[in-house]
Parts: sequence; structure tokens; C-alpha cells
Amino acid sequence: LESPHEFHSWAHTDWITLNVGGRRFTTTRSTLVKEPESMLAHMFRDKDVWGNKQDEQGAYLIDRSPDYFEPILNYLRHGQLIINDGINLLGVLEEARFFGIERLAEQLEGVIKNSQPPEDHSPIS
Amino acid sequence: LESPHEFHSWAHTDWITLNVGGRRFTTTRSTLVKEPESMLAHMFRDKDVWGNKQDEQGAYLIDRSPDYFEPILNYLRHGQLIINDGINLLGVLEEARFFGIERLAEQLEGVIKNSQPPEDHSPIS
Amino acid sequence: LESPHEFHSWAHTDWITLNVGGRRFTTTRSTLVKEPESMLAHMFRDKDVWGNKQDEQGAYLIDRSPDYFEPILNYLRHGQLIINDGINLLGVLEEARFFGIERLAEQLEGVIKNSQPPEDHSPIS
Amino acid sequence: LESPHEFHSWAHTDWITLNVGGRRFTTTRSTLVKEPESMLAHMFRDKDVWGNKQDEQGAYLIDRSPDYFEPILNYLRHGQLIINDGINLLGVLEEARFFGIERLAEQLEGVIKNSQPPEDHSPIS
Amino acid sequence: LESPHEFHSWAHTDWITLNVGGRRFTTTRSTLVKEPESMLAHMFRDKDVWGNKQDEQGAYLIDRSPDYFEPILNYLRHGQLIINDGINLLGVLEEARFFGIERLAEQLEGVIKNSQPPEDHSPIS
Repeated sequence: LESPHEFHSWAHTDWITLNVGGRRFTTTRSTLVKEPESMLAHMFRDKDVWGNKQDEQGAYLIDRSPDYFEPILNYLRHGQLIINDGINLLGVLEEARFFGIERLAEQLEGVIKNSQPPEDHSPIS
Repeated sequence: LESPHEFHSWAHTDWITLNVGGRRFTTTRSTLVKEPESMLAHMFRDKDVWGNKQDEQGAYLIDRSPDYFEPILNYLRHGQLIINDGINLLGVLEEARFFGIERLAEQLEGVIKNSQPPEDHSPIS
Repeated sequence: LESPHEFHSWAHTDWITLNVGGRRFTTTRSTLVKEPESMLAHMFRDKDVWGNKQDEQGAYLIDRSPDYFEPILNYLRHGQLIINDGINLLGVLEEARFFGIERLAEQLEGVIKNSQPPEDHSPIS
Repeated sequence: LESPHEFHSWAHTDWITLNVGGRRFTTTRSTLVKEPESMLAHMFRDKDVWGNKQDEQGAYLIDRSPDYFEPILNYLRHGQLIINDGINLLGVLEEARFFGIERLAEQLEGVIKNSQPPEDHSPIS
Repeated sequence: LESPHEFHSWAHTDWITLNVGGRRFTTTRSTLVKEPESMLAHMFRDKDVWGNKQDEQGAYLIDRSPDYFEPILNYLRHGQLIINDGINLLGVLEEARFFGIERLAEQLEGVIKNSQPPEDHSPIS
């Protein structure tokens, strides 16, 4: 986990803003590349990678759900899976798989298996 | 479902911002035309279609509810119906019908039938 | 209810942005005047009515709650009363009365009567 | 309560935007001074009072929680205490006391006493 | 606790905007340094500290979750731990520890111990 001392390194890191489905998320390059095999690590490992498109304010465009991206980004920040009540876990799982964060996807599958009673009728496709 | 490889094609696709009832959603033309018979496919199949109006920031104007549009857009992104707790399914159904996404409307009708007990008093007109 | 064909008329209608208590809502003049006896119809029936004030971005100012205005505006869009869980129905009723949408206020009074058990202690004045 | 006729006076009143903890609320001077003994009445009774600071967009700065300010402002608008499910009543009470709206604070204390069972463990300090 | 009289000192204090994960929070320097041993006090005790980075609008960048930062900031404003239903307490605890607000972290640990039944399956890592 990050400590206050690590925090001061924020002055030296690259800050990156993402436009995920229309909502802006601000984070650092080191957070985005935390999971080395993920799509985000591939996108942001090197500066000015071929294939990333930015909006008119310089935020990198990602065509995904902002609501379900939020816990994904927090997981990259501190390594914990923390989700508010009412957020559909299947939505977060969909994003974890899309972004190729395998450890998180497996953890979510376990949580979903434990939390969903067999008589559940919540919308899944 | 989209794979990381498909993702890199984001650099070559058109990004489109919608202003749905005052909230901005950013997505791609390929997402919006995913359901070929839908109104969104009709609106965005060809560039510069006659009849689409944009706000002063270039977002296409749609006079509908942003809250209920969100799961519709996610469905177009990955083909899954995923809705958070507390969101009124009848609101999403109303949008699915308005936008002419028939498969989604049918799926929602099934979910609503299963989830609403006969003694339910939630507001419907 | 509106059909896809009616939708294409959006190109020919006036788009109007409201600033309700600090949040912006974008809609059309035809939505706002749907209920002919309502205050919104009186405000927006004619262009450039005396008495409407706009903010610096051209949105018409309304000193009311944005949270409770949202289902009111959706009602004007499609004629359905659809409210998410957790939204206080008394808040929506207060707005329906303020804006003079009588049919909606009556419908809400019926829903509230049915949904509130006698032992309920939720905050009402 | 305000009537549609009173509404038309919006053209003649001062519109004021507050920046409460980073979120903007737009309202009128007459709403803010509704409770004559409150801090908001003291702040906004006279134009250009000594001691109010504005952000770069002209919104008056208030270092408090926007979530809990929202029902306070609605109370000033129409005199009703209306709070959505899930909003912590202690947060609204804290703001009612801070802003010196005594009648509202007393009403909230009554609601809290009635709504909180003795075995409740929700976070209070 | 702050009184209305203390409020008037807002005219003389420094206002600071934070960009926490993409959402803006406006507060005062005196709020941010309230807990003398915390990271926020270290960051903002002196003006123009080495190591704080600002976005293009002058907001200080912090790579953390805005949702869970909100109750932390409110705690610094008035000394109360107040959290809405549905907000994951583990998320707030993670931030309290990250920002080094020890008294708040201990209080949260107590609340979590009391509120989580042993059979709980909510997502924790």
C-alpha cells in the first residue's frame, strides 16, 4: 500500500485524465499501469502510444461505463475491491474482464457466487 | 464481445458525444449503430445525417432521460443488460422502446414480470 | 407516445436548456408545453416571454430542486410517472404542485397513499 | 407556499449561485433570506456584504457538504423537510445547526429520535 | 464546532480546490490542516509547498476516490463521522488510513466491527 512518503512522488509522476463514457477520471500513469497484463497498462505504459485518442480537453477516450469503471480504478489505486451497495457486481465484472484485470475478475466471480441466492431475479442477460 | 485487440481500433473510429437531457455521454459510432433496426442506428449510421441537431459543444441533442439511457448505452457496448439496484426497470423499458431496441425491450419485460410481486405499489402510470 | 418518426422532428423544434437549482436540463419547447395549464407551458409557450431570466450560458433559471424536477420532466416527455427507489415521493409531489401539473399531482397522491404505511416515520413537515 | 404568480417575480429578483464544497447551487436572494435569523440571511440580506468571497465564476464560497446542503436549500424554497432514502439525517442536522435554521434543526431532531431504533449502529461520532 | 461568527472569517482564509480523482472539492486551508499529523496538513500547512501539483484550473491533484473522500472532508469540516447508507465503510477507512487521519480510522474500525455481521458477504479483498 502507498504511504504518505510515496505520495510526495505525485509531483514527479504523469497525471492522466480519462474520459470514460463522458465522465472524467483523473489519475496517474503509475496507477494505470499497475496491473502489467491489463489493457490499461498496454495503453499507458509508454507515453504517446499509437492508438490512444484524446478529447478536446486532452482526456483519453474510453467507450465504457463510468459507473462500473470507478471501482476498477480504485482497485488499481490501492489493491482493494470496494463496491458500494446497489452497484451491480456483474457490471464491475464486465469491466474487469474488458480491461483484462484477471485477478480482479476472479475475485469478483467469487463475490458474485457468494452474494447471489439461487432465487435471485436481478437482470442478467 | 469486444477484445483488447478490437479496442485498439478506437483510434480509427468516430467518437460521438450525445447530450441526453442535459448530461453528456461519449461513445463511438460503432456502438450507436450496433442494433441495426434501432433509432440510434438510423440516426448515426451515416455521417452528417439530415435531422440531427448538436449543442454548442457539438454533442447531439436527445430529449430523453439520462438516468435510463445509461444502461441502454451499456447494452449497446457489450450486449449485457446490467442495471443497478434502485433504478426503475420501467424507466429503462420506456427508453428501450423509444429507441427501438426490440430485443432489449423483450428482455426487460421478462425481468420486470419476474421481479414485481403482485402486491407491488411502485409508481407506474 | 412518441414514435421514431416523431423523433426526426427534433431537427425542427426549439431546444431549451433549464438551470434548475444549479443543474442543467436540456429538452425541447414541445416537451415543456405538453401540459397546457402548467406553469412550464405558460413560461415557454411563446418565444422570448417577458419574465424568464437566463444564466450566462443561456439556460432559463428556475429556483427549485433538480432531483425532484427530473421525474417531472420525464413525465412531460412520455406521459409516464417513473421514479427510482429512494427518491422521496413527497418531493416530486411538491414540484408537481408548484409547476401546476394537476394530473400528475393527483397520480402522486394516490401512489403516496398506497405506499406509506401508517407507522411510517419518514420526514414530512 | 409560492404560487405561479409569485413565480413571475423571478424576473425581478436577484439570482445567486453558491459554491458549496465544490458543487454549484443556483437560487434567489429571497430564498436565501427566508429564515431571518439564519446565517444565510445574514450573509445575503444586503447586496455586496462585507465578508462573502466568490470563486472565479462569481459563486459565493461556502465550506460545507453539498449533499447535506441540498435539503436545507429545498426547505428554504418551500418550507418542507423532504429527504431521500439513504441520506444520513445527522448530516442534514449538522448543516441546519451550522446555518442557524433553528426550526428545521428541531424538526430534524424529532425525526431522528423517531427513526433511529435503539439498536442502531449507523456511524455517529 | 464552528459558529456563525467563525464563519465570517471565511473572507480572510485561503480557499483551496482539490481535484480528487476527477471531481472538484472546494474547501479552506484551515479545514485541510485541521488534523495536524495528517497528510493533508502536511500538504497544505504552508503555501506553495514543494510537491503539490495543480491541474489547468488550479485544483490540487490527488489520485484517490472522490466518493470516499467526501466524508473525510466533512469530518475535517465539523469533526463528525457521517456517512450515507450504501457507502462502503471500508472505502472510507481506506482513505482515512491513506490520508493519515488516525482518530477517524480508529472510529471507522469500531463502526465496521459493529455493523458487519459474521455472515456478511460484501466485497472485501
